[in-house]
Amino acid sequence: MIKVVLIRHGQSEWNLENRFTGWSDVDLSVNGLEEARQAGRVLKKHGYVFDAAHTSYLKRAIRTLWIILGEMDLMWIPEYKSWMLNERHYGALQGLNKAETAAKYGEEQVHLWRRSVNVRPPALERNDVRYEASAPRYQSLQDGEYPLTENLEDTERRVLRYWRESISPALTSGQHILIAAHGNTLRALVKHLDRIPADGIADLNIPTGIPLVYELDERLAPIRHYYLGIDGELPGEAIPSRL
Amino acid sequence: MIKVVLIRHGQSEWNLENRFTGWSDVDLSVNGLEEARQAGRVLKKHGYVFDAAHTSYLKRAIRTLWIILGEMDLMWIPEYKSWMLNERHYGALQGLNKAETAAKYGEEQVHLWRRSVNVRPPALERNDVRYEASAPRYQSLQDGEYPLTENLEDTERRVLRYWRESISPALTSGQHILIAAHGNTLRALVKHLDRIPADGIADLNIPTGIPLVYELDERLAPIRHYYLGIDGELPGEAIPSRL
Repeated sequence: MIKVVLIRHGQSEWNLENRFTGWSDVDLSVNGLEEARQAGRVLKKHGYVFDAAHTSYLKRAIRTLWIILGEMDLMWIPEYKSWMLNERHYGALQGLNKAETAAKYGEEQVHLWRRSVNVRPPALERNDVRYEASAPRYQSLQDGEYPLTENLEDTERRVLRYWRESISPALTSGQHILIAAHGNTLRALVKHLDRIPADGIADLNIPTGIPLVYELDERLAPIRHYYLGIDGELPGEAIPSRL
Repeated sequence: MIKVVLIRHGQSEWNLENRFTGWSDVDLSVNGLEEARQAGRVLKKHGYVFDAAHTSYLKRAIRTLWIILGEMDLMWIPEYKSWMLNERHYGALQGLNKAETAAKYGEEQVHLWRRSVNVRPPALERNDVRYEASAPRYQSLQDGEYPLTENLEDTERRVLRYWRESISPALTSGQHILIAAHGNTLRALVKHLDRIPADGIADLNIPTGIPLVYELDERLAPIRHYYLGIDGELPGEAIPSRL
């Protein structure tokens, strides 16, 4: 049976400051570091072993992965990093305080930007310092791949491209894979795996730092999924939303 | 001009306990962690940027690399790990205390095992718990590649294979490469680069945690090399031996 484990990075410094993050490269908070350690201990306790790990270009996900691999004594396994696993790009909202943004644009508008699948936040201008398409990290991207803003469907498109091109072949060849990524990257992937319709995704939240296991059949269709707690497996429903 | 930076991992827990390490997978000591942070700060201060990093399958080198990439804000670059960059295999001496081994076999014999290029320490038996050829980490190795013991020439052979197959093509294509590895792995590489004869290598020691820069011509022949200190470049000769 094929298993893939998804992990959302622990709390970042901007989660703590209540700011929109997106592709901003902020590190884990002290809390987030501890969440990652705990995730590694839980995976080890349940006897998980991985052949390879995939993560984004953003340090909060990479550091979460590194801490987990350290706890599991798996620092030697191959790591693959891709911009396609980056968090959803939040456009011109990146770096803004969520409460101030709600005060300015209204709660309802902010809720739409955050939770609808097809509404994009205001786009970045190309002369904005937050537009980093020419940074070394993103120079391998093709024209048009560096986003100015994204809705969840935009994120889903690149995440599924990576899933098809890089993860699916490894899973069907029998590899055990860990994916350390972001709230919306993982929501997009779960939306695809569980065929969740666009109007059913708003309430789907994946908690930080808790390993989410998907068991898949040979066509990579999900059989079941569950979270791993320190005391055993937990059904998805038992995890309270933290968003 | 082509540059490659070599870094020997910081002090490990067994350096501290004066034990032969080889392929034993021991972690950095508190001192070693600080050496790695300092190496990262020095590289950043000198304005170095890397496109990719290569390291071994052993956590003291991988952790050194991770700490450096964290300090340099380069956590996103590709990392490549290979058993061919592992420390020289120390055979049946692995785990033994160096002073006790000298008391048992004599100083001269231990010096030969440590410093000659063609004398191998006693070989591991295949039923020794330290023989890990069937561990997941080493399952990709071909028959005969997992060593029972190595002299420096054995180590050199696999290091140069990795240099030719994986590092040279990247360097000649213009990539800036960091190699985080081990005392004897790097001695073997330097022996090759600087065409040091077998009888000239005994006194060559590469200090831990100090970036060693090689400038190479387009055929990857060395032009010059130097260490990076916090206050500037240091000629190789100015670094005292720590072995």
